[in-house]
Amino acid sequence: MTSEPLINTDRLWTRLMSLAEIGATPAGGVNRQALSDGEIAAWRRVIGWAREGGLTPSTDAAGNLFLTLAGRDRTAPPLLLGSHLDSQPTGGKFDGAAGVMAALEAAVSLAEQGEKPARDLIVVAWMNEEGSRFAPGMMGSEAFTGERGMDAIRAARDADGISVGEALDRLHQAFPDMPHRPLGFAAGAYLELHIEQGPVLEAADCMIGVVTGIQGKKTFQVVVEGAEGHAGALAQQERRDALAAFAEVASALHAEIGAIDADIKFTIGRIAVVPNAPSVVPSRVSFSIDLRHPDNAVLDAAGARIETLCQEKAPPCSVTVTPLVDAPSNVFDPRLRASIAEAAREQRYSAMAILSAAGHDARHLAKVCPAAMIFIPCRDGASHVEHEWAEPDHVAAGTAVLAQVLRELAFAPAIEA
Amino acid sequence: MTSEPLINTDRLWTRLMSLAEIGATPAGGVNRQALSDGEIAAWRRVIGWAREGGLTPSTDAAGNLFLTLAGRDRTAPPLLLGSHLDSQPTGGKFDGAAGVMAALEAAVSLAEQGEKPARDLIVVAWMNEEGSRFAPGMMGSEAFTGERGMDAIRAARDADGISVGEALDRLHQAFPDMPHRPLGFAAGAYLELHIEQGPVLEAADCMIGVVTGIQGKKTFQVVVEGAEGHAGALAQQERRDALAAFAEVASALHAEIGAIDADIKFTIGRIAVVPNAPSVVPSRVSFSIDLRHPDNAVLDAAGARIETLCQEKAPPCSVTVTPLVDAPSNVFDPRLRASIAEAAREQRYSAMAILSAAGHDARHLAKVCPAAMIFIPCRDGASHVEHEWAEPDHVAAGTAVLAQVLRELAFAPAIEA
Repeated sequence: MTSEPLINTDRLWTRLMSLAEIGATPAGGVNRQALSDGEIAAWRRVIGWAREGGLTPSTDAAGNLFLTLAGRDRTAPPLLLGSHLDSQPTGGKFDGAAGVMAALEAAVSLAEQGEKPARDLIVVAWMNEEGSRFAPGMMGSEAFTGERGMDAIRAARDADGISVGEALDRLHQAFPDMPHRPLGFAAGAYLELHIEQGPVLEAADCMIGVVTGIQGKKTFQVVVEGAEGHAGALAQQERRDALAAFAEVASALHAEIGAIDADIKFTIGRIAVVPNAPSVVPSRVSFSIDLRHPDNAVLDAAGARIETLCQEKAPPCSVTVTPLVDAPSNVFDPRLRASIAEAAREQRYSAMAILSAAGHDARHLAKVCPAAMIFIPCRDGASHVEHEWAEPDHVAAGTAVLAQVLRELAFAPAIEA
Repeated sequence: MTSEPLINTDRLWTRLMSLAEIGATPAGGVNRQALSDGEIAAWRRVIGWAREGGLTPSTDAAGNLFLTLAGRDRTAPPLLLGSHLDSQPTGGKFDGAAGVMAALEAAVSLAEQGEKPARDLIVVAWMNEEGSRFAPGMMGSEAFTGERGMDAIRAARDADGISVGEALDRLHQAFPDMPHRPLGFAAGAYLELHIEQGPVLEAADCMIGVVTGIQGKKTFQVVVEGAEGHAGALAQQERRDALAAFAEVASALHAEIGAIDADIKFTIGRIAVVPNAPSVVPSRVSFSIDLRHPDNAVLDAAGARIETLCQEKAPPCSVTVTPLVDAPSNVFDPRLRASIAEAAREQRYSAMAILSAAGHDARHLAKVCPAAMIFIPCRDGASHVEHEWAEPDHVAAGTAVLAQVLRELAFAPAIEA
């Protein structure tokens, strides 16, 4: 344990606010979609800071960004730490970005101490965590951990018909000299800082959340098919109105699934209507379902019930329910959690164990190496909104804890899982 | 009554199919939105045919297209006949276009007989009947009849933020040498041919519908406001989910308003969700309501109930209901209806009286001059769909009836209302 400051808190905050200028929205939020011009601009800015700090950029076939601080033993499994740079369309300044900037600050500060770490430290920004432009999200970490193949990932398309493959090629063309790493190399450990995206830490007046695990999540794409017709001519009893059927289905789902217990989270967030014209009876409604619960048994039962309810309520329209994400609840590495709690204690930050309500790339990394997450509070628990906010002191505290855990791992002769 | 053929049926059909090439969709329909490049191209083609037939093009501030066959008395109120050239986004070849081409064929055939009519005959294509790009529709006929002012019309915007004013200026710039008529000149009578857009004529095996009137219509724009939040973190009981509230509102409206009686038509055709992302609780849902009934008292009562039901079902979200169109049922001119029935009888086409379920520009013209409509059957009653279809024989029959009524009016010393 060094007595010098673990991080430069001013630099950290200044850089985080600078990053938030890229894709800034008039209402103070950030719209920086995966693989967009905004994300490419964010890469350039972050790479510039990394190079100043002595880190070297590289990428992989999945469009993940790696910033490496070389260690003494280049063959030892490196330490990975980071988050993501993409945002929701009406997202905030902290979701993802805070984790990448905290990791960069921790690594650069360590480099500035002068002593080479025992192994490589790699700051990572995973591709398309949010899944708002290309669904479903966490593409970069799923490709890295072998959860999903690149062919399937490259085939996904955004609302304008642009494929991930096309957008990835465009990203790589924007950085023609950047070396490509093989997809999915072995890592010694993974650490991720993130805003909580919930109200628990704030309510407990607690600065550091030691994340125990991530609540399970299932997502579905549902398509209701009816028949188009003239709004003024087609008799009501002869209609197969896809939007009327959707309303029945959605009402039933919200009423039943949304009321399972206090821990359930049920959301229909996206809908598309065809032809979506005021005087045409809609022929087709497709919509997304996002379902989460910390208990895998409850999650599975609720998921099964969704298909049944859709089939019950859609007639006279037909309905198809396609499962997309099926991610059970997971548990983070106990040793890393203990190190995080100990670092918070030493630095005199209040800390508590907390379950992550939201999904994170760490879910996937936890399958291939010891992994853990550090949460910091966000105002009113609000996230995926433009007024998302984390206090500078909280960002600094979380980053200092991350930096301390990183140093312990960076100079350890070996990492035990 | 001349013994020569009233119209050239081959030319009529060939031109109608040629017009359908402009904005043709892969599924055989037409997407030719108001004031779009497609509509400008349609104008060029129709104007070319009109000039060949001796008709002269002009326009007005509302972007209506007029094609004038000069009569002996240029000061007598002209006869207007026509329909519209714009379509629904997934519309067909006949809705609107058949009426314009029938009017053009009737006027050109009359011109070919050589004898000048007593007064001007003007074929008209009204601007934005459909209301699918700029809502609400019938802008051209409402401006012409003074129903709506040009300032309000020019201020309406499409989904891309383009105003009617900008699109109108663009249309006029595309035809820089075309004379502009004053908006809303006096007309001696108005005639419009249209496909029925319903199943009545086909079921009765009847070729000509003598339209008695148009069923009343109200439209509304409804906005449900909630609060955005993270789909994985925000507790269900703390949500103000605008899409969940929409589902409750829409279910209640369909169940109650849609079941008033066998004549009611209730449609939610267009919806927009904000931010419309899979893992964000929606903060805002706006949607359109289209309500129709032939009985004005029933229509008024149903319209009033809509506002009440929205307020009952939207909480914990808030809701605002804005009435747009309020068009009571109307009755067409009895003398013109009798002339249409007589022309059908003379030409040995089966005919019947029929109420129009859909709205048409003739609704507005009927307020300022004697007006009437001729319906022809369409297959399966389907309209506002890409497979919309009318038989060539039916298009020809309706056009011949229109042509005969036109000749009687064109050579009459005066038109009695």
